[in-house]
Amino acid sequence: MRKVCVVVTARPSYSRIRTALLALRDRQDVELQLVVAASALLDRFGNVVKVIKEDGLEIADKVYMVLEGENLVTSAKTTGLGLMELSTVFDNLKPDVVVTIADRYETIATAIAAAYMNIPLAHIQGGEITGSIDEKVRHAITKLADFHLVATKKAAERVIRMGEDPGTVFVTGCPSIDIAAQIMQAPAMNFNPFEKYGGVGTQFDLEKGYLVVMQHPVTTEMKEARHHVTETLLAIQDVGMPTFWFWPNVDAGSEDTSKGIRAFRELNDSRNIHFFKNMHPEDFLRLLYNSKGIVGNSSVAIRECSYLGVPAVNIGSREGGRERGKNVLDVSYDRAEISAAIRQHLNNTRPENDMLYGNGQAGIQIAELLATLPLKFQKRLTY
Amino acid sequence: MRKVCVVVTARPSYSRIRTALLALRDRQDVELQLVVAASALLDRFGNVVKVIKEDGLEIADKVYMVLEGENLVTSAKTTGLGLMELSTVFDNLKPDVVVTIADRYETIATAIAAAYMNIPLAHIQGGEITGSIDEKVRHAITKLADFHLVATKKAAERVIRMGEDPGTVFVTGCPSIDIAAQIMQAPAMNFNPFEKYGGVGTQFDLEKGYLVVMQHPVTTEMKEARHHVTETLLAIQDVGMPTFWFWPNVDAGSEDTSKGIRAFRELNDSRNIHFFKNMHPEDFLRLLYNSKGIVGNSSVAIRECSYLGVPAVNIGSREGGRERGKNVLDVSYDRAEISAAIRQHLNNTRPENDMLYGNGQAGIQIAELLATLPLKFQKRLTY
Amino acid sequence: MRKVCVVVTARPSYSRIRTALLALRDRQDVELQLVVAASALLDRFGNVVKVIKEDGLEIADKVYMVLEGENLVTSAKTTGLGLMELSTVFDNLKPDVVVTIADRYETIATAIAAAYMNIPLAHIQGGEITGSIDEKVRHAITKLADFHLVATKKAAERVIRMGEDPGTVFVTGCPSIDIAAQIMQAPAMNFNPFEKYGGVGTQFDLEKGYLVVMQHPVTTEMKEARHHVTETLLAIQDVGMPTFWFWPNVDAGSEDTSKGIRAFRELNDSRNIHFFKNMHPEDFLRLLYNSKGIVGNSSVAIRECSYLGVPAVNIGSREGGRERGKNVLDVSYDRAEISAAIRQHLNNTRPENDMLYGNGQAGIQIAELLATLPLKFQKRLTY
Amino acid sequence: MRKVCVVVTARPSYSRIRTALLALRDRQDVELQLVVAASALLDRFGNVVKVIKEDGLEIADKVYMVLEGENLVTSAKTTGLGLMELSTVFDNLKPDVVVTIADRYETIATAIAAAYMNIPLAHIQGGEITGSIDEKVRHAITKLADFHLVATKKAAERVIRMGEDPGTVFVTGCPSIDIAAQIMQAPAMNFNPFEKYGGVGTQFDLEKGYLVVMQHPVTTEMKEARHHVTETLLAIQDVGMPTFWFWPNVDAGSEDTSKGIRAFRELNDSRNIHFFKNMHPEDFLRLLYNSKGIVGNSSVAIRECSYLGVPAVNIGSREGGRERGKNVLDVSYDRAEISAAIRQHLNNTRPENDMLYGNGQAGIQIAELLATLPLKFQKRLTY
Repeated sequence: MRKVCVVVTARPSYSRIRTALLALRDRQDVELQLVVAASALLDRFGNVVKVIKEDGLEIADKVYMVLEGENLVTSAKTTGLGLMELSTVFDNLKPDVVVTIADRYETIATAIAAAYMNIPLAHIQGGEITGSIDEKVRHAITKLADFHLVATKKAAERVIRMGEDPGTVFVTGCPSIDIAAQIMQAPAMNFNPFEKYGGVGTQFDLEKGYLVVMQHPVTTEMKEARHHVTETLLAIQDVGMPTFWFWPNVDAGSEDTSKGIRAFRELNDSRNIHFFKNMHPEDFLRLLYNSKGIVGNSSVAIRECSYLGVPAVNIGSREGGRERGKNVLDVSYDRAEISAAIRQHLNNTRPENDMLYGNGQAGIQIAELLATLPLKFQKRLTY
Repeated sequence: MRKVCVVVTARPSYSRIRTALLALRDRQDVELQLVVAASALLDRFGNVVKVIKEDGLEIADKVYMVLEGENLVTSAKTTGLGLMELSTVFDNLKPDVVVTIADRYETIATAIAAAYMNIPLAHIQGGEITGSIDEKVRHAITKLADFHLVATKKAAERVIRMGEDPGTVFVTGCPSIDIAAQIMQAPAMNFNPFEKYGGVGTQFDLEKGYLVVMQHPVTTEMKEARHHVTETLLAIQDVGMPTFWFWPNVDAGSEDTSKGIRAFRELNDSRNIHFFKNMHPEDFLRLLYNSKGIVGNSSVAIRECSYLGVPAVNIGSREGGRERGKNVLDVSYDRAEISAAIRQHLNNTRPENDMLYGNGQAGIQIAELLATLPLKFQKRLTY
Repeated sequence: MRKVCVVVTARPSYSRIRTALLALRDRQDVELQLVVAASALLDRFGNVVKVIKEDGLEIADKVYMVLEGENLVTSAKTTGLGLMELSTVFDNLKPDVVVTIADRYETIATAIAAAYMNIPLAHIQGGEITGSIDEKVRHAITKLADFHLVATKKAAERVIRMGEDPGTVFVTGCPSIDIAAQIMQAPAMNFNPFEKYGGVGTQFDLEKGYLVVMQHPVTTEMKEARHHVTETLLAIQDVGMPTFWFWPNVDAGSEDTSKGIRAFRELNDSRNIHFFKNMHPEDFLRLLYNSKGIVGNSSVAIRECSYLGVPAVNIGSREGGRERGKNVLDVSYDRAEISAAIRQHLNNTRPENDMLYGNGQAGIQIAELLATLPLKFQKRLTY
Repeated sequence: MRKVCVVVTARPSYSRIRTALLALRDRQDVELQLVVAASALLDRFGNVVKVIKEDGLEIADKVYMVLEGENLVTSAKTTGLGLMELSTVFDNLKPDVVVTIADRYETIATAIAAAYMNIPLAHIQGGEITGSIDEKVRHAITKLADFHLVATKKAAERVIRMGEDPGTVFVTGCPSIDIAAQIMQAPAMNFNPFEKYGGVGTQFDLEKGYLVVMQHPVTTEMKEARHHVTETLLAIQDVGMPTFWFWPNVDAGSEDTSKGIRAFRELNDSRNIHFFKNMHPEDFLRLLYNSKGIVGNSSVAIRECSYLGVPAVNIGSREGGRERGKNVLDVSYDRAEISAAIRQHLNNTRPENDMLYGNGQAGIQIAELLATLPLKFQKRLTY
């Protein structure tokens, strides 16, 4: 039975890969080894252990690796630590193939540990383009990976142009779309977010329309993190519509983002905002579907929301190069631009659904590939 | 004054970059920060500290990072450790640009530390093709690097095809050729290797002709390391010509290579072989120039020896994809093939010199680029 | 000039050693090398960097070493990391003597790094007795240390009985008492805590009397941390007097303590409590002096408050074996016992000042010893 | 079934604890978890894995933790690394009690990991006195340990005087004596050391009498390591008797010791010396029993050889404070003193056996205690 080891290092990565994990769990020919690491284990960034257990998945190992400090030096050291710890984990679990997801800085630790230990490595969601350090990380992982399970055709083309063997590149779509596809079958709100998730701030009437904000610090613009989040807060205050605000991922700069939010709350009227740490992925997508739009720099706005047809205001460079559907308006870190874009969306009709990032079968396809691909760990540039 | 930090992690890397270091030292507009790390600090792999001091270079910091054990797990952990340690070093030295050399497994630690700390990264000798894990490491570093100082036109083409901005890719030639070019101006032997370097084994008359062997373990063929080295030993025994044999680099597998050598010496007649740990680069090239040929899987056989016109027998996959001149005969790990190729070379006239890997000015060109390039640390795939 | 390197790993340690640092800074025969490490660098545990700069001290190096997770495994790993990082720091700073303070788990990293690098080690505040893991850490550091600068005569006796050379043991008193002694010269409140430190919760009239609470999780009772803090919260609610509550140190269990506080605040009326993260040491002592008493398990209650004559309710085993003056009432983790003890204090007259932990000259004496002691790093059990 | 985890970090530690391990393996009420770490895994320091398998013991985990460099900084970092790695191991194995042996620098990593993770810790061979850094390490471990299984009555007295509860201190004797006791029942040579262990150097006739040398570098005298070993080599050369010489442990300074040996061999006549890396413990003791004496600074000379009645010349401070029988002559690092002491022994009759370090039942007693002691992990100074 093939041992497939998936390393999840952050809450959003879990959400993204979830349907593939469930499909792997359900296969008879696969032993799923789920490793939970880094901020995915930490309460203040939305510990996913509980969610994983609710999903009926077993955790093969946990890896604490976040060196606290949230600056560039600790990002590098966290990655070094992760590499040391994950090589122990792989040595114990002896997987036949390791799976790493996307492009967060610490995921390169997974990639190097597998590559150096001669374990075939599959990379989910390579070939995309964004701004920031993620850009370097993502493509470096492509060069370390033996198999590339990408979200879009354009991503596949890029991976192949980078010199990867076309026979190792597969367009599966993004598994996060799978959940969106399930939601779409009965999309009405079926839970009360205030009751289910607590959070802090005003409770308001969902029926009257609301926005969702998710804004992460951008590593290469770190010193600006606090200013950036404040601009968005001011825009949201200006628009005045009830808003759900989600705390950022752990990252160099997240402390400054968090400080910016706290400082704003103490000095300003933030009565129209309710703050959450995190939410079950399905609930989150349902919340998005029923919202008037999403604001910030989360990739959810571009991926899932293109499928769901949710208006999105994308701020700044973080998602710069990512392919996008018609649901997205791009703005800079400027309160006036942000509020203008929100108002423009509110005045328009809702965008159409778009299959750019997948047709809802990504999880099943990824599981099938991981279970059946002939494995290898040697490769060579194709040119 | 621009601070240029060069990280050297192994004896052969120092030899390769040496003329660039000397050129950097001599510039008025550069503060050279030389960091010596990993096996470059260890006596049993040819500690280069003494050589560096003889070259009149100052060492800015030393980084012990080799976790002993010489297996795949310790390779990964050594890299993790190096990442943790080098981020401290960069935080202390605050370089304007970091330089990493070639493709040994631990060099990715230099690349990640610089990239994650928003320090512009220059990579020397990307874009080449070889077998083994180096292949993954080299191209992953290309994706982390901001500037690419490559040895050949073909390497430059490959780096650009991988999506790097052509404005950041420069063909400088390989600085190791610079030393070869200097040697060529007066190539006669001017030292006695037995007196100067000791070593163990028979002392023989250089005038009667001799071979040089340098054979490293190949990570992805690790379990075979002992068998591989034994085949070469038997071939050398069979040919019977006096031979200088150099011990391998520290690497997963080097312990097995070393064991193979020791076992052979105990059981066989190795009277025609003299063993050295390492040699000053200039002496080594002079020794090569005056030899009848080089045998093994060192890149020296392909780079410097093409310029010097030294016959080479290249064994196995390690240097598989590297561009080569007419001086190279490729064979597999087989004593009969190896000895046949040696004999073929001995019967032919000496190959002509070839400028494939540089014209002897690489060090000066690299120093000029590092001193004057407009620096940046953000990039994006070009397609 | 003698290089004296003091490693501070937590906010309370800085407060405790502060007058010695100022005295060292003012000496002509000493170069003070102040290293700030671990939670002392982290905002959520009261980053002391700002306070240090306000005190006019320079920071020689910063060491991020807290592996996030706040459980027993991450405590051990944090210490291992600290040992790796601090040996780099000592190798760079080359101190003549290293100073480590008290008994927090991560301080043993300082002690081992110094001992293993043959650097004389001075330990501040050994020889005391408490419950919990601190007990093991403190005495293990005594066995690694070459000089013992202890707070009380009894502590000196214990250190000597453990086999230390009496010529290396000095009773200096505790430098935290120095600040208390300064405060005592003009003890009236001279700042408004709400204005100066913000915090969250009700603002009340200090003139009407208030309590101070500081309760840390106890490592060996970790699973109980949340329950323990809740008992105290209920007692404070019951007594009803206005109260300043300080958040706990980072430690295995602190997350649970923090959760307990947050949960209580959501479900209960905590109108009489105002929460602070931390406070400048002098302000804190002044606040204490003017309070009706301190509740919790902080050593401040036993050391400084004995000198200041502040009534203290000491909860649980954390400070179990520490010598105490007449100002302390000991209770268990029980809301009824806690509130009864608070009421008993409120009904009594204020306790007298007690010089048990020092006469106010500890900082000057410690600086004198560190500057002038003949140094050595070898020792042997005296029996 | 109680899980007893024993961590072995060096070849001599394995030899010392071996009979206890065999006794633990044979008990029905114990699951033995044997962890092999540090130099015990490395070929060049006498990898013990093969010996362990021959003894029929299973290895629960292996921990590579030696940072190569063999200087004081790498000793500290190796210990830090070990602490990080061993906490992972204990978290996976979940032992009921951890056992650490003696006083090598890296063993404190075992002690801290166990103590910080609230796992009861038993220390074998505390309470002894020696020179060097071992002295600090040994007693620091005593203060971290919950149970003390010591070799002699005097050691027990010292541990109790250091403030340990007498109810936790047990005189078991040293298990290395158990093997000596078994050997004594039929002590004639029953193997040919040259055939069984190879080694390098002359093969000589055992019947004519021979010496054994084992000399380790002393950490606090590190720079002297090469000089020290050379004095012994010269003394052995002077005496001229056939000699078996064993390579030193990995340690700061061992590289210098090894260099001293190599340099001597190249420049001097060492025909009367045969060099071994290591030997099966039983064979080693038999070899010792049948020798004319042991020379160097190994504790074997003092422990096992007192029981066996083998004359010993103990050089320098390493074993300074250790209790000794009448078989030991102490000398300094001086060729004349060393050779004089050897000659004095050769002229005397063989010393009598001495039970100072045990009666041959230590392994069984240790196993019984580890299997049945009521476990706890909290303690307090007794005074």
